[in-house]
Amino acid sequence: MGTAATPGTPNATTGPADSDLVRAALGREVRRTPVWFMRQAGRSLPEYRALRAGTAMLAACQDPDLVTEITLQPVRRHGVDAAILFSDIVLPLVVAGIDIDIKPGVGPVIAHPVRSVADVDALPDLEPEALGFLATAVSRLTAELGDTPLIGFAGAPFTLATYLIEGGPSKEHARTKAFMYAEPQAWERLLAKLSVSAAVFLRTQVDAGASAVQLFDSWAGVLSATDYATRVLPHSRAVFDGLGDRAAGVRDVPRVHFGVGTGELLPLIGDAGADVVGVDWRVPLDEAARRVGPGYSLQGNLDPAVLLADRETLDREVRRIVEQGRAARGHVINLGHGVLPDTDPGAITHVVELVHELTAR
Amino acid sequence: MGTAATPGTPNATTGPADSDLVRAALGREVRRTPVWFMRQAGRSLPEYRALRAGTAMLAACQDPDLVTEITLQPVRRHGVDAAILFSDIVLPLVVAGIDIDIKPGVGPVIAHPVRSVADVDALPDLEPEALGFLATAVSRLTAELGDTPLIGFAGAPFTLATYLIEGGPSKEHARTKAFMYAEPQAWERLLAKLSVSAAVFLRTQVDAGASAVQLFDSWAGVLSATDYATRVLPHSRAVFDGLGDRAAGVRDVPRVHFGVGTGELLPLIGDAGADVVGVDWRVPLDEAARRVGPGYSLQGNLDPAVLLADRETLDREVRRIVEQGRAARGHVINLGHGVLPDTDPGAITHVVELVHELTAR
Repeated sequence: MGTAATPGTPNATTGPADSDLVRAALGREVRRTPVWFMRQAGRSLPEYRALRAGTAMLAACQDPDLVTEITLQPVRRHGVDAAILFSDIVLPLVVAGIDIDIKPGVGPVIAHPVRSVADVDALPDLEPEALGFLATAVSRLTAELGDTPLIGFAGAPFTLATYLIEGGPSKEHARTKAFMYAEPQAWERLLAKLSVSAAVFLRTQVDAGASAVQLFDSWAGVLSATDYATRVLPHSRAVFDGLGDRAAGVRDVPRVHFGVGTGELLPLIGDAGADVVGVDWRVPLDEAARRVGPGYSLQGNLDPAVLLADRETLDREVRRIVEQGRAARGHVINLGHGVLPDTDPGAITHVVELVHELTAR
Repeated sequence: MGTAATPGTPNATTGPADSDLVRAALGREVRRTPVWFMRQAGRSLPEYRALRAGTAMLAACQDPDLVTEITLQPVRRHGVDAAILFSDIVLPLVVAGIDIDIKPGVGPVIAHPVRSVADVDALPDLEPEALGFLATAVSRLTAELGDTPLIGFAGAPFTLATYLIEGGPSKEHARTKAFMYAEPQAWERLLAKLSVSAAVFLRTQVDAGASAVQLFDSWAGVLSATDYATRVLPHSRAVFDGLGDRAAGVRDVPRVHFGVGTGELLPLIGDAGADVVGVDWRVPLDEAARRVGPGYSLQGNLDPAVLLADRETLDREVRRIVEQGRAARGHVINLGHGVLPDTDPGAITHVVELVHELTAR
């Protein structure tokens, strides 16, 4: 897969490295604004529910056949401009050997939550050799996808830490913050460890042919800007840095960084090393472009709940986002968070068609 | 109770209407910056846990003896500058006769969630006559509290609607938004109905002697500014308007309006008719002052999780908030959300003492 043209190469004019997704991510001219959906592979699709029946989430994520098929389903059905690897945010922890179960309707539950320095030191490392299933799935996917780019997937150190520390679902992430304040050294060690895992997990996907990566710091929005800048951002930067030095000629791909409720963090997030900053539905894209500053593309902003609305409302919102997205250097249409399980797949297909119609050059 | 001096009266120089809480809320000079804590009455206090043992939450909220004692506990223990009525956000719905249960560790669960226009029309109204227990509790409290002001409590129409529509706990509030988009007329009727309930609930507390009111729109932060401005704000304004016309000489008290994650809504929230805008921990108070504009005091900003941190971190944050709060016309020190159940009560007492020490004129 290492033979694919890198997006940084001026003569990259065919294949996924020349796709509108990659072009928009790097701020280049596009044929039409690319559109994909976070959690496009998942419970909104009947073909997904049929395929997953009887297989636990974490088992499915480690089965290259299932990962390939589930990742392809929304591309076939909706004609989206990118596939995103079907995975789970805690998967690198599970593969490393941490005892985690995903309880349906609840989320990840950790058998032994991290509550002390000793707990941090006892965490196993993620060995690249354990990721054969991932390399296999990505290789098959990039072969199947042709010119459609595959976006690699990983959770950012902070968000992974919230799962490890809270031990189960949490709205406030208070234990995580308390640990961050009370055990600053253990916190640094934990996040450093998780940044290595995330980098290994993404690097495997890039080496196997992914055309872009997205680092999900889903819960970073619970932090104040000061705490984010000093205690979290450096570790997210370490993940992107761990992908290799662009200047040194390592195969490189555009980097997307996303979190929910990050309105106050937008001026900082790009500093982690992102090409594209993901925006939830709270900050309009013209304002988001102002906050992130020049040099970044934007992704997102459609409220997932709007997909449950009538077509008139949905169309109005899509038009607004297409329009406001012009304020950014490049724009990837997406939701402000993942597709809700109750979503009618027809609404997603409709948005793809509408975006393509509205933005064809 | 109607004889208490109104805060709008220039010669109000004694009693709770002249308290630092009321003065700060109205932008007047204070003796020292007032401090209280959302959920100061509750699970962080052992005396609360002892008193509540064996009594269900919604029963406790309707028992004037328990309400009085629980409301007074944090005032006695911490020396806070205000009491807030011990209540629950869904109480007006329960008193109206809607079948709601508060499941420990889960939250309010509604037997028949609102999913249609017919469901909205079938909702019973809140009759003021049903609120005798509330008037009794507030009268007793204001007698007991002396110069310490009592803040009345109610949930805003949008947040009440989320409970009715979701039917149970929700992170995304997607059903609520879907209903808002799909059934705009039913939505208007539902929120209009809930605004009447909230106004009746607050008016009862003001008539019985409360010195201020706080309207909690806890979940408004899940909305975009446009949806908030057009579909929610007018109904919050109706609640404050329903408290009576200040100009017409109705007994009046300062109005606090609060929600979590409302950074993008701060320029709008004051328009509902607030004197004080509550701010969570995400937006620093100097920036919040800029967003709300002149003419409003601010409340809040301390992250509840910081109360779980070491004293050095806690003191640094308190000092920062005292300092940044000077940017507002008036400042009430508070958390950015409610006290977490695991909080050491000693940390709360410590913050009260520190604020008083730092801000004594």
